[in-house]
Amino acid sequence: MSFDFTGKVAIVTGAGGGLGYAYAQYLAEHGANVIVNDLGGGTFGYDGKPSSKVATAAAEKINALGKGKAIADGHDVSVAKNAERMVETAIQNWGHIDIIINNAGIASTEVFPNVSKEEYDLHLGVHVLGALNTMQAAWPHMVKQGYGRIINTSSDSVLGFSPQATYPSMKAALIGLSRNAGLLGVDHNINVNVIMPAAFTRLSALLPAGGFRDHLEKDFQPEKLAPVVGYLCHEKCEITREIFSIGGGKFQRIVMASSDAMAVDMTMESVEAQMSVVMTDDTSKLQIFKSTFDDLKNLGFSDEECQMFYDMTATQQELGPIEAVPIDSVDNVWDITIKSPVGDQFSRLVLNSSGNSLQGHVLNEEHGNQTVLDGKIENSDALVWKCKLTKPVPMTLTYTGQVDKDQNLQGKVVGTLMGKTVMDCAFLGKPVFGDQADQAKQESQQQAQLDGQKKPGLLKRLFAKA
Amino acid sequence: MSFDFTGKVAIVTGAGGGLGYAYAQYLAEHGANVIVNDLGGGTFGYDGKPSSKVATAAAEKINALGKGKAIADGHDVSVAKNAERMVETAIQNWGHIDIIINNAGIASTEVFPNVSKEEYDLHLGVHVLGALNTMQAAWPHMVKQGYGRIINTSSDSVLGFSPQATYPSMKAALIGLSRNAGLLGVDHNINVNVIMPAAFTRLSALLPAGGFRDHLEKDFQPEKLAPVVGYLCHEKCEITREIFSIGGGKFQRIVMASSDAMAVDMTMESVEAQMSVVMTDDTSKLQIFKSTFDDLKNLGFSDEECQMFYDMTATQQELGPIEAVPIDSVDNVWDITIKSPVGDQFSRLVLNSSGNSLQGHVLNEEHGNQTVLDGKIENSDALVWKCKLTKPVPMTLTYTGQVDKDQNLQGKVVGTLMGKTVMDCAFLGKPVFGDQADQAKQESQQQAQLDGQKKPGLLKRLFAKA
Repeated sequence: MSFDFTGKVAIVTGAGGGLGYAYAQYLAEHGANVIVNDLGGGTFGYDGKPSSKVATAAAEKINALGKGKAIADGHDVSVAKNAERMVETAIQNWGHIDIIINNAGIASTEVFPNVSKEEYDLHLGVHVLGALNTMQAAWPHMVKQGYGRIINTSSDSVLGFSPQATYPSMKAALIGLSRNAGLLGVDHNINVNVIMPAAFTRLSALLPAGGFRDHLEKDFQPEKLAPVVGYLCHEKCEITREIFSIGGGKFQRIVMASSDAMAVDMTMESVEAQMSVVMTDDTSKLQIFKSTFDDLKNLGFSDEECQMFYDMTATQQELGPIEAVPIDSVDNVWDITIKSPVGDQFSRLVLNSSGNSLQGHVLNEEHGNQTVLDGKIENSDALVWKCKLTKPVPMTLTYTGQVDKDQNLQGKVVGTLMGKTVMDCAFLGKPVFGDQADQAKQESQQQAQLDGQKKPGLLKRLFAKA
Repeated sequence: MSFDFTGKVAIVTGAGGGLGYAYAQYLAEHGANVIVNDLGGGTFGYDGKPSSKVATAAAEKINALGKGKAIADGHDVSVAKNAERMVETAIQNWGHIDIIINNAGIASTEVFPNVSKEEYDLHLGVHVLGALNTMQAAWPHMVKQGYGRIINTSSDSVLGFSPQATYPSMKAALIGLSRNAGLLGVDHNINVNVIMPAAFTRLSALLPAGGFRDHLEKDFQPEKLAPVVGYLCHEKCEITREIFSIGGGKFQRIVMASSDAMAVDMTMESVEAQMSVVMTDDTSKLQIFKSTFDDLKNLGFSDEECQMFYDMTATQQELGPIEAVPIDSVDNVWDITIKSPVGDQFSRLVLNSSGNSLQGHVLNEEHGNQTVLDGKIENSDALVWKCKLTKPVPMTLTYTGQVDKDQNLQGKVVGTLMGKTVMDCAFLGKPVFGDQADQAKQESQQQAQLDGQKKPGLLKRLFAKA
């Protein structure tokens, strides 16, 4: 069989019946070992008493086929810890995790304009956090093995069909999640695709009897989606960050595409004049947008500018191991780059030691010079210090870095705000020598004098009075 | 001026600066009175101490222009009550609410695969609930006046640009929300459109210095988006449920479009064979999908089936006033239709009174016959009763209806599950006469006998023993 899954390990959520079960069985029939996850809850998220019997029965059915093995899991995937446990189960039993199909879902009962925060919380949990949690739990394993296939279940309800709000909007959220997280998978052979299923399931069985439901029941069996989903999960398939509508033995690709960008001035008349151009239904004039950068280019940014933007924000620098050397003393200057979530942040770092204690500054024009606080050489090979940032956000940054034989600095920086970790990313330092280094050291000394002249804080002054 | 807003009333959220302020000023310059909403919080949702000064300063600036008036509002729109208050302020001061621009937003700091539920809760609140709350608060007023323009702010980050998860996925959620809620506006001249702004704001000011940010700062001023947003808010503009990317004096329409639907069998080989067809980049072969029904038609459903589906689910029956007549006694049969969120539900209702007390059944093949409980004639003109539903969800339904001179029944039915309201919708009843009515009454009597034979519940039996 050219499309075989022997030796592969999959997790399918909401696999107690319907679509999830169809995928799980199909993968197992083709040799995969499968974690069959199902909370065994109700159709609406608050109905029914969750029962692990649902997952157990599904796993037994798959095991009875005598092909790939199945293990039942009754966890609620909207809780991160549960997704982690499920991935651990896969690793412990079969050594790896290759495929995740996020299929668990619930239906709305509220309709616009009477939708509550409570229903949104419920749908965020099952649809969005459910997918996020399994993805995040499996991601490091997939990166390590250089292979992973993830399917997130959106819905064509996103396109507009009813006054429901929670279901279609949380299903749309999965498109934004997949197309962004999917970017990170490109270099690791981890594909993240989105499907919009049309099938007769317990959700669509709620539809009123009549022509539409009859047709769905007759021709749109869940099993018919499995070959497309299976293909997207296969190692051979290189497609990622795409959306497919699937059902009734057919499938089609859904794209986001754009008209030409038309220029307007500050009048609404100029907008009116161009509206018929951008509203064209002549699809030959459309351009498929595969990323945000396609949109930005259409609006006038150059390839180079987009590449720069991408390099600074979309690629999280992954730190290889550094060959750390022992550190006795420090009197150095580095150009440091923080790989922050909002893009690379550049500063010049001046550090010098007296004994195991570190002094110095992070020099930054934009955010202001920051004094090195609580600096020390730790375990004879790590530099640890804190800085207080006031702009753009008041944050305490804690740096931990090591140095190699060429004096390259590498480590991580954790930002906390009122005790909460709000940033945790890599930083890199390239050593600076000669005049530039001398100048930086001088600036650090001047800043130290300014630091010394600062008035003590309000609390200290109050205590001084007392 | 052919595009004037004199006499119109708008709410702009996040209007203390940047894009929101630009829209508010533009509308006011063209004559609109504007509620300038801004929480005055930080860029990331947890930073900075909210201050009403931000909104106040913005409103003062607009009032100083001497055109449309501005009122400052410092409420947090992620709380429904606050959005309601804001709409009340508009109504109290200016008598109506015509335009809502949901612009308030925050930036992510967490990146995949280290994203927390907490950041998701924050982004759901500001981006999605913020928009939902103002829409829901203004909706009844807009329906009543037969005019409304709503703009929801998504982002081209939805297309994929970085390892952020919360921001792009909650921005994508607004597409699903707008395209569905927007359907309800079609008959009321309420347009709901989505924009993806590209502008130099406090969010993009966080980007690292360099070519990309410089270009953004130089050419993508927030003011340049205002004419397009203004046009979409104008009464003349009939466009609804569309997505526009706007920035730098340009705008373009973003569509969701589909390839042809290709048939596959149960093998992955058949999928592989068709994949190059659906993955075509030849946009002339695409079809723009304006709703879920376009997708369903492409998969093989007929126009009639889609129309039936739409009629049953997308159109919430709006109840005009009923000319209720007094009720002395009841011995009637009705065909009732519940306009439920998952489509019309049909049953036959048998009711008869003894004094003010009501007995009878809701006869339903699919969900089982339900006994009328606690039935009574209330205030001499309303019929009130409860039923217990076991399928598809265990729910208590409370019906309240009135009857007109032609014995048409009309009212609402509220479904509760463990004390929580999970359904609240309209029902309509058409009187049934002759043989059909007799047959239904007979079935109700038989069911009453079956009801009588039922064993008392466990609790009752326990008490009987004691």
